[in-house]
Amino acid sequence: MYFGYIDRSCYLNLNFITVSNKIKEFRDYRSMMNDRILAKDNLVIKRLFNLDTNTYMDGALTIKTKEMLGLVASMVLRCDDCVKYHLEKCHENQVTTDEVMEVFAVANIVGGTIVIPHTRRALEYWEELLVFKEL
Amino acid sequence: MYFGYIDRSCYLNLNFITVSNKIKEFRDYRSMMNDRILAKDNLVIKRLFNLDTNTYMDGALTIKTKEMLGLVASMVLRCDDCVKYHLEKCHENQVTTDEVMEVFAVANIVGGTIVIPHTRRALEYWEELLVFKEL
Amino acid sequence: MYFGYIDRSCYLNLNFITVSNKIKEFRDYRSMMNDRILAKDNLVIKRLFNLDTNTYMDGALTIKTKEMLGLVASMVLRCDDCVKYHLEKCHENQVTTDEVMEVFAVANIVGGTIVIPHTRRALEYWEELLVFKEL
Amino acid sequence: MYFGYIDRSCYLNLNFITVSNKIKEFRDYRSMMNDRILAKDNLVIKRLFNLDTNTYMDGALTIKTKEMLGLVASMVLRCDDCVKYHLEKCHENQVTTDEVMEVFAVANIVGGTIVIPHTRRALEYWEELLVFKEL
Amino acid sequence: MYFGYIDRSCYLNLNFITVSNKIKEFRDYRSMMNDRILAKDNLVIKRLFNLDTNTYMDGALTIKTKEMLGLVASMVLRCDDCVKYHLEKCHENQVTTDEVMEVFAVANIVGGTIVIPHTRRALEYWEELLVFKEL
Amino acid sequence: MYFGYIDRSCYLNLNFITVSNKIKEFRDYRSMMNDRILAKDNLVIKRLFNLDTNTYMDGALTIKTKEMLGLVASMVLRCDDCVKYHLEKCHENQVTTDEVMEVFAVANIVGGTIVIPHTRRALEYWEELLVFKEL
Repeated sequence: MYFGYIDRSCYLNLNFITVSNKIKEFRDYRSMMNDRILAKDNLVIKRLFNLDTNTYMDGALTIKTKEMLGLVASMVLRCDDCVKYHLEKCHENQVTTDEVMEVFAVANIVGGTIVIPHTRRALEYWEELLVFKEL
Repeated sequence: MYFGYIDRSCYLNLNFITVSNKIKEFRDYRSMMNDRILAKDNLVIKRLFNLDTNTYMDGALTIKTKEMLGLVASMVLRCDDCVKYHLEKCHENQVTTDEVMEVFAVANIVGGTIVIPHTRRALEYWEELLVFKEL
Repeated sequence: MYFGYIDRSCYLNLNFITVSNKIKEFRDYRSMMNDRILAKDNLVIKRLFNLDTNTYMDGALTIKTKEMLGLVASMVLRCDDCVKYHLEKCHENQVTTDEVMEVFAVANIVGGTIVIPHTRRALEYWEELLVFKEL
Repeated sequence: MYFGYIDRSCYLNLNFITVSNKIKEFRDYRSMMNDRILAKDNLVIKRLFNLDTNTYMDGALTIKTKEMLGLVASMVLRCDDCVKYHLEKCHENQVTTDEVMEVFAVANIVGGTIVIPHTRRALEYWEELLVFKEL
Repeated sequence: MYFGYIDRSCYLNLNFITVSNKIKEFRDYRSMMNDRILAKDNLVIKRLFNLDTNTYMDGALTIKTKEMLGLVASMVLRCDDCVKYHLEKCHENQVTTDEVMEVFAVANIVGGTIVIPHTRRALEYWEELLVFKEL
Repeated sequence: MYFGYIDRSCYLNLNFITVSNKIKEFRDYRSMMNDRILAKDNLVIKRLFNLDTNTYMDGALTIKTKEMLGLVASMVLRCDDCVKYHLEKCHENQVTTDEVMEVFAVANIVGGTIVIPHTRRALEYWEELLVFKEL
């Protein structure tokens, strides 16, 4: 694994807490606000949340493929939080870094250079997920 | 009113300053930068700012309805600052939380799950406006 | 009602068949393709169609208000077919031309001049709905 | 295969020429205008066209997966011509109708109901590709 | 000038009426519907139309530069009618074909391959404007 | 130069480090993550990065004009990081504040009031570039 100009052991020593914090922060905020949204008991929104979960279940296509579809769609629509979510799911479903990079490539070609800043943040999050897994 | 897993009195005690700060920060930055933009004396931009204000005035539709239209448009276009602004105006014009949730529902159905992260931030801001009002 | 430079009786005489055909064509294609989509039995899509219908039902907000929300959201997202659909529903729910114009105004201010071409097509369809109703 | 309310043999007898014409028309216009664009000798555009082709080549992900990624990205960005192109490539790469429907499902959930009109046109084109193949 | 596979004299003989019709059709519909919109007397929309005209007037930047800015903005936002309008203005303001192609190149790189179908239609319209001028 | 309600000398005294830090932070993150992206050796992405650089080179249009085209395209697509990048390039290529304001005006008229929050951040960054240059 490559961490820019930073030697790896150093990176882990200095930044380990930050790394896991970044992932934790995203997950905590997401889950806290989802709870607060669902607590409002709006039927349409509750059913949409439900449907969202069902969309990525195993079917004619595998979960892995569907999560990559969700990832590329989130990237071209430039939704950083959606990208993070699907990166987590891709990671859980054994998508490799080379595969993620090819999803990024499709997103950047279809959506243009405005997707590049999102690709920067996406790769950063992806590499944090990799570090997190290995520990 | 519901604040996730946090007991209300505790929330108020611990977070009151943060709560008003968040709203204050948005308003201060918005108004400071609007002043700096207008100071540049670009006629087109000045007139657009003016026109923007006129758009939400009482007419065939009430201000309340127009602010909800502005809110849903801002949500599907995924402009967090615009959402905050229209939430403030909805709040001033007696839109209830149930009504806001139905505006969110339309936005999420029309615009899809990429609107969800904006809904999280929107509900958070809305609930801060409610706390702020009650104090 | 105003039809540009065309005298009304003349408009009706010359164009009546075209007018109703335009509305009919939109409805027929929409309903034929919806049937073909639903016939594929994809559970997620079937439930989304269902949920879409529920979104615009009476609740904290009236159907009329919700249809105007759907209309403005469709306009800023520049989906002509969605605009037509919500114009039909607005028309069924007694939205007046002045009210429709104020929805258009919000859409054009929030979404910019790229919304103008969609406003042209929207007004054309709206006026056909008005003629159609009166006959 | 299902063709709405139209009996299949009848569909083929009556509409065969239309069917192949629709596909032919898209391909002919696309290829004629691509030629005219490339004839202008703008280096950036020529290299982008080239790069576009390379994006969907076999790599860590299969062509089939990449074409589905291209399809879902085109759908959420609501580019009908891009959708048609990727449907052709999906069809060439043995994507089944059930798989295509699951790609459509992801696109509709992520991108919302504004994707539905594009789904109608996409399914229509897909079914023409199927008829075309079988003949 | 290059017309794909079609010999020029032949193109002019066969298609001259079509060529001018295409431009005429766009202009006529645009101007008819603008009149019908303005006749509704919605103040916000009337002032926005006005402001739109003022935006492209001579200032710190020339009209020519501003029209190219309007063109690239319309292309990345994928508004074919806006593209046609700014192509006409670019043409009136002596933008050359090489310059137009460089505007297209920026649009395609920033906005990605979903801009390509709009580039096809844009170049077609541009070349019709060139033929129209020369006659 | 105008800095809202803050007297200039005071601004420089108190905020000089922040000012340069903001620009430095953007540049550092951008260049660090670009390096990490390129290190993944995805050919399509590497060539797209390359092509992106070539797009803004001198040609039929000057670099200055092309950078303004890139700026307006980034603004209407509402990509803050892309806006910052093109503001830096505009600044390097002697675009004046009045010219930048006219680019902003086109962006706000074409893209609507959802562009305003991006205009706020853009002007803030632009004025930091001006301060930075003068020191």
